[in-house]
Amino acid sequence: MTLKRKDLLTIRELEPEEIHQILDTADSMKEIGTREIKKVPALRGKTVINLFYEASTRTRTSFEIAGKWLSADVINIASTVSSMTKGESLLDTGKTLQAMRPDVVIIRHPVPGAPKLLADRLQAAIINAGDGAHEHPTQALLDLFTIRERLGRLEGLRVAIVGDISHSRVARSNIQAMRKTGIEVRVAGPATLLPRYPEQLGVQVTTDLEAAIADADVIMMLRIQRERQGPTLLPSLREYSRLFGLNVERLKKAKEGVLIMHPGPLNRGVEISPEVADGPYSLILDQVTNGLAIRMALLYLLTGGHPAER
Amino acid sequence: MTLKRKDLLTIRELEPEEIHQILDTADSMKEIGTREIKKVPALRGKTVINLFYEASTRTRTSFEIAGKWLSADVINIASTVSSMTKGESLLDTGKTLQAMRPDVVIIRHPVPGAPKLLADRLQAAIINAGDGAHEHPTQALLDLFTIRERLGRLEGLRVAIVGDISHSRVARSNIQAMRKTGIEVRVAGPATLLPRYPEQLGVQVTTDLEAAIADADVIMMLRIQRERQGPTLLPSLREYSRLFGLNVERLKKAKEGVLIMHPGPLNRGVEISPEVADGPYSLILDQVTNGLAIRMALLYLLTGGHPAER
Amino acid sequence: MTLKRKDLLTIRELEPEEIHQILDTADSMKEIGTREIKKVPALRGKTVINLFYEASTRTRTSFEIAGKWLSADVINIASTVSSMTKGESLLDTGKTLQAMRPDVVIIRHPVPGAPKLLADRLQAAIINAGDGAHEHPTQALLDLFTIRERLGRLEGLRVAIVGDISHSRVARSNIQAMRKTGIEVRVAGPATLLPRYPEQLGVQVTTDLEAAIADADVIMMLRIQRERQGPTLLPSLREYSRLFGLNVERLKKAKEGVLIMHPGPLNRGVEISPEVADGPYSLILDQVTNGLAIRMALLYLLTGGHPAER
Repeated sequence: MTLKRKDLLTIRELEPEEIHQILDTADSMKEIGTREIKKVPALRGKTVINLFYEASTRTRTSFEIAGKWLSADVINIASTVSSMTKGESLLDTGKTLQAMRPDVVIIRHPVPGAPKLLADRLQAAIINAGDGAHEHPTQALLDLFTIRERLGRLEGLRVAIVGDISHSRVARSNIQAMRKTGIEVRVAGPATLLPRYPEQLGVQVTTDLEAAIADADVIMMLRIQRERQGPTLLPSLREYSRLFGLNVERLKKAKEGVLIMHPGPLNRGVEISPEVADGPYSLILDQVTNGLAIRMALLYLLTGGHPAER
Repeated sequence: MTLKRKDLLTIRELEPEEIHQILDTADSMKEIGTREIKKVPALRGKTVINLFYEASTRTRTSFEIAGKWLSADVINIASTVSSMTKGESLLDTGKTLQAMRPDVVIIRHPVPGAPKLLADRLQAAIINAGDGAHEHPTQALLDLFTIRERLGRLEGLRVAIVGDISHSRVARSNIQAMRKTGIEVRVAGPATLLPRYPEQLGVQVTTDLEAAIADADVIMMLRIQRERQGPTLLPSLREYSRLFGLNVERLKKAKEGVLIMHPGPLNRGVEISPEVADGPYSLILDQVTNGLAIRMALLYLLTGGHPAER
Repeated sequence: MTLKRKDLLTIRELEPEEIHQILDTADSMKEIGTREIKKVPALRGKTVINLFYEASTRTRTSFEIAGKWLSADVINIASTVSSMTKGESLLDTGKTLQAMRPDVVIIRHPVPGAPKLLADRLQAAIINAGDGAHEHPTQALLDLFTIRERLGRLEGLRVAIVGDISHSRVARSNIQAMRKTGIEVRVAGPATLLPRYPEQLGVQVTTDLEAAIADADVIMMLRIQRERQGPTLLPSLREYSRLFGLNVERLKKAKEGVLIMHPGPLNRGVEISPEVADGPYSLILDQVTNGLAIRMALLYLLTGGHPAER
């Protein structure tokens, strides 16, 4: 049971069946994290490199734990583009790493397409852990997994995504993943942060939060990137929160029991109120737990894992 | 053989029997570090997170090695409070980590009570690796272990602790650990750095180093925190060293063979002279070695270890 | 099969037979990296500390992977001399680490002789991973291994080393390793960067690149250290490249099929042109792959490995 591709670079390139295959594999992986002894030999003797050019406790840790539970050797390399190893280019870094015979290289990089650059030239399986404002495919997969786990299906659901849609790799990957699995997507945010060609994405857009969430089964709030604030793009945090923050009051306009998601880290009191984030319909921590299952599934599938090894 | 508590947060909350239980377990763990193959399967399939908000080569490395010798998966997360993962609160970081199903989270944090905050809300066992000027319980336990190993007992011994008593988490944890195990404690330092209510701590205070060490079985020198120097609290380093530095000359006023301890790192020539630090009665490196035994014992006890697995 | 020494500090101190012993052991180690399951139990239960006072993705990662493939526990400690653990001296850091019972400490440090300082006082095997402008012995060993692997021998070959000879630890270690194994060495570079006493090194010097490479079997280009540029030592990068950069045009003056080496990271277009670096006679990535074999061999030999464990 392997994927029919060497790398996981984008959701865009995945067939719906591949998405379901990954989710199904994650289903069987999830149980490992509940065992007394969280360790299976599936990736013993495999070498996984976590190559992070942006700080990320959450995603890096998730991949590291996923790899270790599968018995892989996990190597962390934290770098910054500015101080990049003595000025070496990404491609030279990649070729150097390839010469060390890794089985998987997970890369987060501020430049869109950086993972593809490596994928085209390295034998190792490349996993995109976020490339600029382009894609963050493992996040979208864990989000789909979380929705499917809770609601039993994807097809025919309605999801509202709220926030800075046009700069968010989480939104971009999720929109594609949802469209491919039959989810209807509505996006809401300030006009300056909405996608310019929504029809190409297959989503409905609105600047009215309440309209977006009215009949949604799931509301996915995006993290506001404070560093993107400025006179042109974003109003003040206070104004943003007033118009697009999700709180208990506003939830009354949504369906009873609507599920709440957020990729984290949270800006409590900005895009989401503590009551909502910690409320009974919040899936925020499920997303984190399921991230391990998705990443185990991908590491497993991309190294050509055999079911018997689980 | 487990502890009757989920976490190790403070010495203050420990019963004397628990302290002895930990020391006894460390006794049986210490031998692992002397083996040709330093590896036992006790924590195989357990996930241990080292969450350090302050730089610490020594303590972080000690926990990491302890975990690996027990076959745990050890994940290091180094952060700073200022650059904390994109501004996420400690509690949100903790809940996110909890969702990754760790068995133990070891935390060092500049804010007193940070470990307790996590312990109250996370299922994982929390170990306090130092929280501000509050407590550093594993240091106190390894210090007791070292004394007991050398002198065969704790009850009835006399220990002098010298330095910045009022800001030292090492002093705070040690004083409580020593009082609970029947050790008589005298503390010495500049008047500005002595505890305000010594009777509550159950210690005798003095500003006279020689009086403090006169009949001590053990002298524990604290590291002077250079960053705490200033016009009000600390005299110049030179003056401090003259009054409270331990050197060979001064040791003549103490009992023959008095044992010398220091939690490290050393400021040689400030609080302790090289001759004393490297002398025959110095236990400073024993403290480091015993730190591994204590930390293995705690990881083992807090994960509900079974003796047969050792 | 062990080395007759505790540490690997310099090439200078090695006997030719020891060099061949290390290369032969690396020969048998190299195959591990080609296996489906890259893991052997040779160093199970051994503790290896990677103590790096200078940033180094390449060398640190190489040692870490080598250790993990051999099943060692590998601990990374990254420090800087300026922020060194709260001002502790290197020797105190070393003694503290020794008290944690590592089997091997790999150290990179900006000060020449730092590894020797540790080696003289610590029981652990010390491996020098680069000390200032002094030596970088594992680089020289992997370079010899790479040449021998390709050409089948060392004795009687001719190698040209080009660049900043006088400040390069790579050059210094390689010159000695090559002289000890019967390689004739010619070095070329700006007059300001040539060794002052070449006869002591047993090499021929020239400021004429073409003369140096004319009859060479191997050309080893050194990385230009941009930080060493200045009015006195180095001309402009452009001028340097014009005089000492290796490109296709210049290669025509060398023997057909001359092999090209570079320790990395590359300054493409400065000391080496992309066409040469990526050309058919480039061994640059072989050097990286072979670095793993050499480092596995050293870890194995210095921990007294038994052949049966492979």
